[in-house]
Amino acid sequence: MRRKSLKGAACPIAKALDVIGDWWSLLIVRDALRGTRRFSEFEKSLGVSKNILAGRLRTLVGHGILELAPASDGSAYQEYLLTPKGRGLFPVIVALRQFGEESLYGSEPCRTVMVDRKSGQPVRKLELRASNGRLLKPGETMLIRREA
Amino acid sequence: MRRKSLKGAACPIAKALDVIGDWWSLLIVRDALRGTRRFSEFEKSLGVSKNILAGRLRTLVGHGILELAPASDGSAYQEYLLTPKGRGLFPVIVALRQFGEESLYGSEPCRTVMVDRKSGQPVRKLELRASNGRLLKPGETMLIRREA
Repeated sequence: MRRKSLKGAACPIAKALDVIGDWWSLLIVRDALRGTRRFSEFEKSLGVSKNILAGRLRTLVGHGILELAPASDGSAYQEYLLTPKGRGLFPVIVALRQFGEESLYGSEPCRTVMVDRKSGQPVRKLELRASNGRLLKPGETMLIRREA
Repeated sequence: MRRKSLKGAACPIAKALDVIGDWWSLLIVRDALRGTRRFSEFEKSLGVSKNILAGRLRTLVGHGILELAPASDGSAYQEYLLTPKGRGLFPVIVALRQFGEESLYGSEPCRTVMVDRKSGQPVRKLELRASNGRLLKPGETMLIRREA
């Protein structure tokens, strides 16, 4: 079943969801952010069929989220690298991670922690701030029409 | 086609994706964050069939993202309200929005802007920061195993 395309949507959230495609694609981006580059590595990490993986990778390349590059070790393999646009999904992945950590574990907490590579300390929670730095909760924002 | 469940996954990102369910569910959460509460309002906003919408709402209630409440105007309708857990998806929605705004519009920018309700000024971009406040880019984080 193909879901309805959100491509024509004016909403940036719907457009983002349309480009990401589906959960597999977002998990591919997650892995790519961790340094995964090769087809076989994605396959192993995701436990997904070759067919589905190939399709998702092709779509992500088509949307300019990933790009193909020759293997970094000089072998005949090709590698999938995140483009700057693809790296722009980092906050989405982190937000999903933090939501999961906070709300979806029972008595046993999540086994991994995202830390600052330099200090080894856990990262802060993503926060939405006003232009003056004030912390913003959901009800404290609104959408306005952009001036032409 | 039912996608493979990610329920047993240890990764908080995969767990989050499993709870959110699919794009419709995330768009329902988007609308709920904007104040949408009634079945007919969600239906109108999303242009989705009653069947699909009812299923997604049921799942979101089942996962504790939404809760049912009597209508705020005393009528016989029921309303769907975000729980605190559901409001925890706010950063996910904002991150998707900012990614969309930044990367998915051509010459014509997105027509709406998210602003601070108080000042009317656009919100800042979500940023991941280290415990000392340093801005963190994707390559500057890593995952470590939580100490038992």
